[in-house]
Amino acid sequence: MIVITKISDMQKIMNEYRLERKTIGFVPTMGYLHEGHATLLREARRQNDIVVLSVFVNPLQFGPNEDFERYPRDIKRDEQIAQEAGVDVLFYPDVTEMYPRPLSVQVVVRERVDVLCGKSRPGHFDGVATVLTKLFNIVMPTRAYFGMKDAQQVAVVDGLIRDFHFPIELISVPTVREEDGLAKSSRNVYLSDEERKEAPALYEALQKAKIAIENGERNPAAICSLIEDHIKTNTHAVIDYVEVYSYPDLTPLQRLSGRIIIALAVRFTNARLIDNITLDVN
Amino acid sequence: MIVITKISDMQKIMNEYRLERKTIGFVPTMGYLHEGHATLLREARRQNDIVVLSVFVNPLQFGPNEDFERYPRDIKRDEQIAQEAGVDVLFYPDVTEMYPRPLSVQVVVRERVDVLCGKSRPGHFDGVATVLTKLFNIVMPTRAYFGMKDAQQVAVVDGLIRDFHFPIELISVPTVREEDGLAKSSRNVYLSDEERKEAPALYEALQKAKIAIENGERNPAAICSLIEDHIKTNTHAVIDYVEVYSYPDLTPLQRLSGRIIIALAVRFTNARLIDNITLDVN
Repeated sequence: MIVITKISDMQKIMNEYRLERKTIGFVPTMGYLHEGHATLLREARRQNDIVVLSVFVNPLQFGPNEDFERYPRDIKRDEQIAQEAGVDVLFYPDVTEMYPRPLSVQVVVRERVDVLCGKSRPGHFDGVATVLTKLFNIVMPTRAYFGMKDAQQVAVVDGLIRDFHFPIELISVPTVREEDGLAKSSRNVYLSDEERKEAPALYEALQKAKIAIENGERNPAAICSLIEDHIKTNTHAVIDYVEVYSYPDLTPLQRLSGRIIIALAVRFTNARLIDNITLDVN
Repeated sequence: MIVITKISDMQKIMNEYRLERKTIGFVPTMGYLHEGHATLLREARRQNDIVVLSVFVNPLQFGPNEDFERYPRDIKRDEQIAQEAGVDVLFYPDVTEMYPRPLSVQVVVRERVDVLCGKSRPGHFDGVATVLTKLFNIVMPTRAYFGMKDAQQVAVVDGLIRDFHFPIELISVPTVREEDGLAKSSRNVYLSDEERKEAPALYEALQKAKIAIENGERNPAAICSLIEDHIKTNTHAVIDYVEVYSYPDLTPLQRLSGRIIIALAVRFTNARLIDNITLDVN
């Protein structure tokens, strides 16, 4: 594995790979890698000649009240995980390399942002889309890998790739779960023992909704009620939102049909958890 | 010359050229080609294996009061000029190919826009930067050609390529002039005979400013006055602006130094003309 910190070096190397007709799988991350990232890397390893991982904590996607400085970092550990996952190129630029001066241009996301978690994080996805535009031009990958845990991010990246015609295939990788169904997350360690026992109720509620839809339910409000009831009955968590939209457009539905997402966010004492499922309704 | 109307066909062909290690020169235009475009095409032909011309009247860069519908179009004539200039690929998509649905992402230009002509055209350069981002990903050129006649556009494209790391070399081509110094423009035909005789005074004024700077003048206000006086004395034109900035940052200067631009816009009866010079002040 080689570690690259300069954009110009990266572009030179990646261009050579492309000219050699190698397929390139790209996993962009903010580092502090966990099982979710490892799954993306494995998938990229399976499908491509070359695997590129980027580790960059992107200041542009943090709001003024979100703590960019305190975001966890551990590049030594990340390097080890990357090595074990078979990464060929680790791109690890610093902030002055990525943002040497104020940007004269920026990507603004006009759709798919004022719902779900995006509602409470104005500008967040503008920062994500801007750094990805930069990274896509630096890495020039064949395929880019994102986890469906953050389904809204996948929807935004889908719009970015489509509208700007990046010659990149978006691969969305299913959420990795514990044996009891709880979506894996670095935040699960902040749950108390009791909360940890309750937390599988989130995925149970989503599965219950799925079964109701399979049995003919087509009313979004009924689906949300069913999920809220299950969570309230089985946990002490406070519900942030339970929402149903078309996917990946994230537009409201009067009646369920086509590809949809059912997504939720709840707050336990020291951890805010999110989860979602997507399904095709005919 | 081949004519392509579909984005996917274009990307397939251009990718093959890249894999064959061909250099690709790209001239993006809104069509209705004139001598200025022909100069860009000649320069592209001289420097590259493959020359690509795009003809697309981009609705996104027209303001609500600017007449997108009435913008002149003549694809047959454009095809002939392209053929004669040695263009290999003419990309000629229609609006529904480029904008099949509302954009979910857009490029916003944060700097270099609130001066010169951009001041009176809010959103214009957002539209330019967005369509160029699309075209750059579709054409994947080695070099992109723009005329210095529209120096602000060159400055914006310079920021776009630099901030988003497009692996593209920006080639800015000097303004083509008539024998008497008047910058070539399709609008010159709207000048009356008398106005046509006066119009070379614009470039004369810029040259006078250049000589003053060579002789030691470093005060931007003095340079602007000198130009305004020359235009007022020698023409009946109404001055829109005469401005001096650093180039390509387009920031105001207390004292002239480094690379600068001196730019002006004036209105004759039926034609608004622009002109500029850039120079290095030591």
